[in-house]
Amino acid sequence: MSIDRLQEKIDTMKNPTVVGLDPALEHIPPEILNRHIKEKGETLDAACCAVFEFNIGIINALCDVVPAVKPQMAYYEALGVEGLVAFQYTCRYAMSKGMYVICDGKRNDIGTTAESYSTAYFGAVKVGSKEISAFEADALTINAYLGSDGVKPFLADAVKHDKAIFALVKTSNPSASEFQDMYIGERQLYVAVADLMEELSIDTIGKYGFTRIGAVVGATYPEEAKILRERLKHTFFLVPGYGAQGGSAQFAANAFKKDGRGAIVNSSRAILTAWKKMGGDYREAAYAEALRMREELRAVL
Amino acid sequence: MSIDRLQEKIDTMKNPTVVGLDPALEHIPPEILNRHIKEKGETLDAACCAVFEFNIGIINALCDVVPAVKPQMAYYEALGVEGLVAFQYTCRYAMSKGMYVICDGKRNDIGTTAESYSTAYFGAVKVGSKEISAFEADALTINAYLGSDGVKPFLADAVKHDKAIFALVKTSNPSASEFQDMYIGERQLYVAVADLMEELSIDTIGKYGFTRIGAVVGATYPEEAKILRERLKHTFFLVPGYGAQGGSAQFAANAFKKDGRGAIVNSSRAILTAWKKMGGDYREAAYAEALRMREELRAVL
Repeated sequence: MSIDRLQEKIDTMKNPTVVGLDPALEHIPPEILNRHIKEKGETLDAACCAVFEFNIGIINALCDVVPAVKPQMAYYEALGVEGLVAFQYTCRYAMSKGMYVICDGKRNDIGTTAESYSTAYFGAVKVGSKEISAFEADALTINAYLGSDGVKPFLADAVKHDKAIFALVKTSNPSASEFQDMYIGERQLYVAVADLMEELSIDTIGKYGFTRIGAVVGATYPEEAKILRERLKHTFFLVPGYGAQGGSAQFAANAFKKDGRGAIVNSSRAILTAWKKMGGDYREAAYAEALRMREELRAVL
Repeated sequence: MSIDRLQEKIDTMKNPTVVGLDPALEHIPPEILNRHIKEKGETLDAACCAVFEFNIGIINALCDVVPAVKPQMAYYEALGVEGLVAFQYTCRYAMSKGMYVICDGKRNDIGTTAESYSTAYFGAVKVGSKEISAFEADALTINAYLGSDGVKPFLADAVKHDKAIFALVKTSNPSASEFQDMYIGERQLYVAVADLMEELSIDTIGKYGFTRIGAVVGATYPEEAKILRERLKHTFFLVPGYGAQGGSAQFAANAFKKDGRGAIVNSSRAILTAWKKMGGDYREAAYAEALRMREELRAVL
């Protein structure tokens, strides 16, 4: 089961870290981009070759110590069709290296439209008699503002294809409170969303006790993470906001169960751009930062 | 200004309709898909050639009577990289025929990630010294669950590039009520979201009195549409849920101002698959259904 596989990879590597593959062009060492521009001109093709080369370098450097990657769709879409090729190849390459791939698309819609999104990332489209996969990932982030109509189609496909989804619950940004913290009756909105996610997926519990719908819970809100962790016995947490956004390892620790399971912490920029701080090869810098983060998390779990 | 252009197209054609370009393969006449399969095999390439041919037919048939199209990203993403090519070409073709293009992606994120999404649809990415556009649209739908951090980057780019955004407020689906109708203090959540959207964009009012942030308000909720229409003096409404989902023209009429301005009603399946009901050429059937819808809307406005 998808979340079991993720937990097992985390257990094996003793590292609950997911690396955000957010390849803004300014995160890539200029010599890589320049080399591709020299060959292909100032084109999206050149940019995407640079992105893919960079991602391969990061994946190769980290695949033995980091269990998962989280490509953020926005950065690939900004590079157009070519960017989506880089996304597709990146997912496939990461999976071939044994990494768990969480596509961070925050997709949301209803009915057959939601089904089309889950087909895009989990399933296959039928062309004549052939079934063809568009993109491939182990999990997809979604936004549940539309209610259960906007979650069930993704969940059904997650069950069918052995995948997982992560719903936005308490996001890491400062303005998350504007709607998410508002009280609706006895509960705050983010709690109501979290409760519904566990309720909808309660019959999909795997061997480590987690359902196929995980929750996105920002490391920047440690109190809320604590509340959610106590409340949601069967929900795996994806934790953004560590590092650059101000969430400490201590804060992130609140997302874990007492046995150290049940969450994975994301780091994007700190790992991808470690070369800017440390100098030297970007892969070695990313590896050093990933180890540093691993030790920091181990120390608090 | 983007919303002014949309309103003017609507005024000129006396038709507040947007056609949803949701090209599920089963919506396309089989002879089109089969012809491309014959040439290119059972491939995504064949599927996407069929989608693009179908969209061109719809756009050519409707561009003199319908002011806008709304391609739904999910259907293009389900067809992978090739699908995104079809999306890109479809947007460009519709714009070249003078149609206003609303990309229905319901994108949502924060900070530089949100900026990357708006770059993808509104702006251009810099590769070396060159600025290159990935996709092109007049407007993008967004989901505001993350609060103003998730709206401001899109709005800033909308201002910069003369575009518009439409935020989900009260969606057309049955479970919309689960979160959106909940009371947070005096207001229901959908009202709070709507209020924030108008507040954030209040200094972007164009000559017809509307800001650059529109609101998605389902035709299936006529009472809520009435409340919102009275409350939001400066917000243009995008109205899904007409037809297939059960929203009548009378219901949709609640989204309009007394002068008949301020909203546009979406129809996807009823127009795209009119050929299944009427028989004959899909373009002629779509045209006939578009005229029928136009008359139905005119009768209530």
